[in-house]
Amino acid sequence: MPKYVYAFAEGHKDLKDLLGGKGANLAEMTNMGLAVPPGFTITTAACRAFLATGIQPPELDDQVDRHLDALQTAAGRRLGDPDDPLLVSVRSGAVFSMPGMMETVLDVGLNDSSVLGLARAAGDDRFAWDSYRRLVQMFGTTVLGIDGAHFDAVFDAAKLARGTADDLGLDADDLRGVVGAYQAVVRERSGREFPQDPREQLDLTVRAVFGSWNAPRAITYRRRERIPADLGTAVTVQAMVFGNLGPDSGSGVAFTRDPATGEPGVYGDYLAHAQGEDVVAGIRNTLPLSELERLDPVSHRDLLANMATLERHYRDLCDIEFTIERGRLWMLQTRVGKRTAGAAFVIACQLVDDGLIDADEALRRVTGAQLVRLMFPRFAPDAATTVLAVGMNASPGAATGAAVFDSPTAVARAAAGEDVILVRRETNPDDLAGMIAAKGVLTGRGGRTSHAAVVARGMGRTCVCGAEDLDVDVDARKIVGPGGVMVAEGDLLSIDGSTGEVFLGAVPVVASPVMEYFEGSLDPASPEAGELVRAVHRLMEHADTTRRLAVYANADTGADAARARRFGADGIGLCRTEHMFLGDRREQVERLVLADTDAERDAALAELLPLQRADFIEVFTAMQGLPVTIRLLDPPLHEFLPDLTELSVRVALAEERGRVDAADVRLLAAVRRLHEENPMFGLRGVRLGIVVPGLFGMQVRAIAQAAATLRRNGVEVRPEIMVPLVGAVQELQAVAEETSAVLADEAERHGVELDAAIGTMIELPRAALTAGQIAESAEFFSFGTNDLTQTTWGFSRDDVEGAFFSRYLERGIFGTSPFETLDIDGVGRLIRIAAREGRATRPDIRLGVCGEHGGDPDSIHFFHHEGLDYVSCSPFRVPVARLESARAALDLP
Amino acid sequence: MPKYVYAFAEGHKDLKDLLGGKGANLAEMTNMGLAVPPGFTITTAACRAFLATGIQPPELDDQVDRHLDALQTAAGRRLGDPDDPLLVSVRSGAVFSMPGMMETVLDVGLNDSSVLGLARAAGDDRFAWDSYRRLVQMFGTTVLGIDGAHFDAVFDAAKLARGTADDLGLDADDLRGVVGAYQAVVRERSGREFPQDPREQLDLTVRAVFGSWNAPRAITYRRRERIPADLGTAVTVQAMVFGNLGPDSGSGVAFTRDPATGEPGVYGDYLAHAQGEDVVAGIRNTLPLSELERLDPVSHRDLLANMATLERHYRDLCDIEFTIERGRLWMLQTRVGKRTAGAAFVIACQLVDDGLIDADEALRRVTGAQLVRLMFPRFAPDAATTVLAVGMNASPGAATGAAVFDSPTAVARAAAGEDVILVRRETNPDDLAGMIAAKGVLTGRGGRTSHAAVVARGMGRTCVCGAEDLDVDVDARKIVGPGGVMVAEGDLLSIDGSTGEVFLGAVPVVASPVMEYFEGSLDPASPEAGELVRAVHRLMEHADTTRRLAVYANADTGADAARARRFGADGIGLCRTEHMFLGDRREQVERLVLADTDAERDAALAELLPLQRADFIEVFTAMQGLPVTIRLLDPPLHEFLPDLTELSVRVALAEERGRVDAADVRLLAAVRRLHEENPMFGLRGVRLGIVVPGLFGMQVRAIAQAAATLRRNGVEVRPEIMVPLVGAVQELQAVAEETSAVLADEAERHGVELDAAIGTMIELPRAALTAGQIAESAEFFSFGTNDLTQTTWGFSRDDVEGAFFSRYLERGIFGTSPFETLDIDGVGRLIRIAAREGRATRPDIRLGVCGEHGGDPDSIHFFHHEGLDYVSCSPFRVPVARLESARAALDLP
Repeated sequence: MPKYVYAFAEGHKDLKDLLGGKGANLAEMTNMGLAVPPGFTITTAACRAFLATGIQPPELDDQVDRHLDALQTAAGRRLGDPDDPLLVSVRSGAVFSMPGMMETVLDVGLNDSSVLGLARAAGDDRFAWDSYRRLVQMFGTTVLGIDGAHFDAVFDAAKLARGTADDLGLDADDLRGVVGAYQAVVRERSGREFPQDPREQLDLTVRAVFGSWNAPRAITYRRRERIPADLGTAVTVQAMVFGNLGPDSGSGVAFTRDPATGEPGVYGDYLAHAQGEDVVAGIRNTLPLSELERLDPVSHRDLLANMATLERHYRDLCDIEFTIERGRLWMLQTRVGKRTAGAAFVIACQLVDDGLIDADEALRRVTGAQLVRLMFPRFAPDAATTVLAVGMNASPGAATGAAVFDSPTAVARAAAGEDVILVRRETNPDDLAGMIAAKGVLTGRGGRTSHAAVVARGMGRTCVCGAEDLDVDVDARKIVGPGGVMVAEGDLLSIDGSTGEVFLGAVPVVASPVMEYFEGSLDPASPEAGELVRAVHRLMEHADTTRRLAVYANADTGADAARARRFGADGIGLCRTEHMFLGDRREQVERLVLADTDAERDAALAELLPLQRADFIEVFTAMQGLPVTIRLLDPPLHEFLPDLTELSVRVALAEERGRVDAADVRLLAAVRRLHEENPMFGLRGVRLGIVVPGLFGMQVRAIAQAAATLRRNGVEVRPEIMVPLVGAVQELQAVAEETSAVLADEAERHGVELDAAIGTMIELPRAALTAGQIAESAEFFSFGTNDLTQTTWGFSRDDVEGAFFSRYLERGIFGTSPFETLDIDGVGRLIRIAAREGRATRPDIRLGVCGEHGGDPDSIHFFHHEGLDYVSCSPFRVPVARLESARAALDLP
Repeated sequence: MPKYVYAFAEGHKDLKDLLGGKGANLAEMTNMGLAVPPGFTITTAACRAFLATGIQPPELDDQVDRHLDALQTAAGRRLGDPDDPLLVSVRSGAVFSMPGMMETVLDVGLNDSSVLGLARAAGDDRFAWDSYRRLVQMFGTTVLGIDGAHFDAVFDAAKLARGTADDLGLDADDLRGVVGAYQAVVRERSGREFPQDPREQLDLTVRAVFGSWNAPRAITYRRRERIPADLGTAVTVQAMVFGNLGPDSGSGVAFTRDPATGEPGVYGDYLAHAQGEDVVAGIRNTLPLSELERLDPVSHRDLLANMATLERHYRDLCDIEFTIERGRLWMLQTRVGKRTAGAAFVIACQLVDDGLIDADEALRRVTGAQLVRLMFPRFAPDAATTVLAVGMNASPGAATGAAVFDSPTAVARAAAGEDVILVRRETNPDDLAGMIAAKGVLTGRGGRTSHAAVVARGMGRTCVCGAEDLDVDVDARKIVGPGGVMVAEGDLLSIDGSTGEVFLGAVPVVASPVMEYFEGSLDPASPEAGELVRAVHRLMEHADTTRRLAVYANADTGADAARARRFGADGIGLCRTEHMFLGDRREQVERLVLADTDAERDAALAELLPLQRADFIEVFTAMQGLPVTIRLLDPPLHEFLPDLTELSVRVALAEERGRVDAADVRLLAAVRRLHEENPMFGLRGVRLGIVVPGLFGMQVRAIAQAAATLRRNGVEVRPEIMVPLVGAVQELQAVAEETSAVLADEAERHGVELDAAIGTMIELPRAALTAGQIAESAEFFSFGTNDLTQTTWGFSRDDVEGAFFSRYLERGIFGTSPFETLDIDGVGRLIRIAAREGRATRPDIRLGVCGEHGGDPDSIHFFHHEGLDYVSCSPFRVPVARLESARAALDLP
């Protein structure tokens, strides 16, 4: 016969799957010998049986009977006893807490007769009727599904009649009246009487908790969070204790260390003459825990002893709830406590020093997400602010500056020493210079994976995007906000990339010491460093000795490369060459794109060669001694030309005005010719290299010449050449042949050896599916997980966000954007296939990742588990990747 | 020791892999006892060994010695004998013939001394020197790689000196002089003497044949045709016989049946006093074979006997080459002969009637590609024509009509009874009505998979696309062709969709009787039917009893459905609903797209409901009793709106002129809002269904109401509902829930049962990779191989063609467009994964294909082999699919 009910003494903390988090920890404390009100837990298995069949499993009734008997014996009271009734709390307890699920019904066991017994036993009429009122209300709303407003209306009327605004203004008689009225509400709204049989109250509540597993909000939440639908919830039934039985009673919550800073020493709040929910509700001001010492030194001493015991036992910061009933301390809940990001690092190191955990365990206790939060400046917490709007928290940090509406203005004003916020409707690659110059970026449109968001995160620039309440009028150089509030160019704005808030005016900013440490401007051994920086440093050092994955950075310029190096990158995994084609070089690129003859094309390429060479010299110099993976040109050529619609309008208007510009007309013809319905899936990447003769050759030549120049000057250069968008081995073969020939030619010309590994991006499903063939021509694979996600799902990042992501998230179809965290089932499966089959062909092939996911904690764990060799991410994400790679290695060495 | 050389007597016809086609068939004839000049074949294995090591395998020399000895003994002559030398031919013989490979060197064995012996033995000086001349020239060009122009110059000079334009004008002395000059060319150009040692001649030639396997053209060809690079070629060495030894000698080629019509009876050409190559070169007029009977009745009788033997032996039409040397018949080659599409069907049936093959074998002897050719009308072969340009042969057939430049004109003039050719720069969905109305479609841009091509093929409409020499000026309503030739609207044009030719004026057209048969207007039992139609009918009937795959059609209208049914479709596998949103309904759709409020949207949907219902009633009625799979709306909504650029220009010009149109401005805002950078990968398919509340519900309701109406009238309706672009099971679940609810609601309302299977397209890699999950909610999968190819390769069909396909084909990166024949390694692998895992979840899931590949012969074989249940293709392709499905079943039952 299945065991569906566990007395607290029968469980322990590792039975969360069966008893839920709450039940497992109550069992643990019971077995540790702490004072826990007696009780038992109905298992998740019982819930699953109920949900599968729609009826309570037949064995359950007997088992509850038995445990209820034991509980009554232990408590020395009986449910429904008209003299001194036992009351119980009934709480749900799933493995994961879930919004929408029923949580708690207190005071089960009261009825019209036992309420009198309770009053007598407690010597407090008001207390008894108030408890009964709470039961009817909680039971009515959560078990019977009656709208809480009906109860509120009754209660408000009672207070009005008594002329009080406060619950405490109602006396026992008033509350008795309220109970009667509540029972009438139950009768009227549910068509049944409030059940007088305490066992019926209990059974109905248990069943309601079970049923709430499938409440719509819970289903949506599970779907979104990818929590299996069939786990079910446990139900804990526990004898009530009361903190509201007078001044020698009270309730409190406490942490074993300060969860905000990690500082050692207990930390908590206490409220005399109150139940637990009153502490949280903030009806009266709570007292700091130290006041309890004065009020009730014995209980205080017991509490401190319990907390010390718990921390040693759980080997972590614990968070507890307790109640003192007439001078007796009861432990009602404990769990490993939440904490701030900074506290996590500090506490982990403290616990190592205390000998409670080892350094590996300390790494397990901190996360990359916490580290990210520590790297950003933030607004001073006590500053007064005026919120203009709230957009999406696209790239964390706090930035203040003058609003500017285009890239040139941003660059000019920044060059003049001014802090600026670049404000755009949405950004595109032309805004890059402005984004670099600005302190922060604000857009009116686009989601967390829009161009602005992705680029800003990549460069660690603060960004709020999709602030849809703001009408960004770039032409008029102003923002119009809700209620007509206007921000003109030059007006000060502040944006918080961690919350999405946009403030009017300048809000004072506090720098991040952790960032200063990574940037190298704060020595962790110096006295200025503080405990947090020392803890981060210690854990990063341990991470570097623990991880197996190399961590490369995506960096296109010497400055980015230098930063990546400071942040601890082991090399560059993605040096894009397309940004090198923008800015001043637009003119040469236009000549290349517009070339009508081979000679014109070759001339344009010849002009680009020395510029590219200089780019590479800069990057190689910054990274000397470390590998630099250069990706040959990837985006469609027309990205370097004006927008078709804008140009068409310009030409049409010029014609209308009789002032035709021949150059514009020629340009328009080229733009039309190159226009593609779906440019992401058109002529780009290796296709360009094959269709535009000499283009990739020029790039390889620039790489070779840069490497040769530096080598002759004794600089160690380790270039690798990466071919984008390969779908078939034949494409890679063609480029590899050309590349090898150019390298050999330049090696001979310069009289130096020029060995550069040639590899490919794996960013198309077909590349992954034919990786065994492609590996014949590739010395390394770099998974381009952005494009691979786009093609695997068949949606483009730019388009989906606005169009349907939000609706998908709402409906729980997505838990998280597959552009943020790798979709293991689809994209991950392709990576697994490609890794396995690539290695089968070429056992020493190097495998890495250079998409956005290279810096995402969950995704890094997957990459480690699949045995990849490296991840490459934006410089700013390098510390996170170092940390998470180590954590992944601890998970599965 | 490997056996590298096979005497003819040691081989047989099934050793093609080892002996090449030529060598295997010579061996077969030898063993059949036919008179074949003696010889031997060096195997492909020897070639492979040579190519792998770069040196001739050491065993080869000895083996050649031995076989050469045997050959000399058999021939009774010795190589290089100064009195009566043996001459041999050396020919390559791969399994697949390949352009760029060396083919033949004749007369090997002649040198300065044996040429005199040959002259004496033959009693013909001129013959001997002419033979020597041929050897030096062939050896010089093919073995030594000397440019043939150098030899031509010498020969032309000799003819000039003699004052003759004809080879025969040169006498023995002249030719001796030519040989001397040729040898000087060899010396000068190759730096070596023409080798006098016959064995050296032989060895060098064999090595050159081996080496030619890796000639660049051969490599490119193999790459394109996906022929493995390591097969190698065989080399056949055979005693020469001479048809040019006088009037009692001669050469000929013959077929055992007429390869043009399939008519029984031999058919061939003979040329007295000539070698085989002279017959082919057409130097003199050949005689029909019957003339040989008069010239040499014995040889003629022997030849006929040999041909009868060969046909019985090969059980097929044979194609032979023979030489008569001084009254003695020699068989030089045989192979199964090429034939026209019509002859293939006729011959296959004749052979069944002759008892040589069974009906299954007859099916193996014809192909879907042949059937397609038979289904189109063609231009009368003897008509005089003026070619205006040649484009791509996008959709076969022959069409003549007046040029028109837009869809409305096409519709109007066609309605008035005129035949028209719709001429566009390129087509888009708005041209559909015009394409239907026209006899043919001509575009100046786009490839074989452009919109025009795909749609035209789909409806069996003749199409020539990408005729880039034509400047199509739609505004000026004219075409300007090469040399300024102008075609104005209304001028007559003719286009041949099988060749890509565009003709000026009307060219007379001959209808296809096979098409008339499929259309049901020609009864195969009637006397008018003719042998071809009877043969097609017989083989189609056998195909239908043989195939396992069901053949469905893609059809969106009642008319298409009716045609599909006539063509033998077993149901509709893809009924697109987007075409139903075009034309007159554009207005309602615009209202839907522009809807600002729920009420506006619901009103627009309500207007569309009865229109959709009428569409479905029409299709269901046409297909009664057979399944109809309806795909819910797929394309991005903005496809139903005007083009962004055009509209932007219109609005800008209107503003400039001070005549702003408020409706246009509102429309522009909507178009901008809906604009996507990559619409193919944006808001479409199931995403639309989830984001636009009520849209799919309306469609399902229309289906349900149509089905209910017809069922109540006793019509058997079998609707199935197909959800497009699903990437995650959660999407399908959401739609399936809504669909089931609507079906249940309508079933109750109408009091009929409404069961409709709910399935999904598998057209995204992720859908294939998670098919095991998706199958939980899908009763069938339909692989949308067009989109699956796009996403797997990461290119969009519309964009790639012009941009890079031609270059890819040229460079051998693609053998054939993956949009025409399924890419087995990439897309095929996904289909295999999805089929296997879908069935693992739901063993009775139905699996089909509804992309273009459903009608492609090679792809159909793959689908059969993967165990799919059906293919769905355009109605016009249904007969092909029926035939090829049967052939696939014979291949692997």
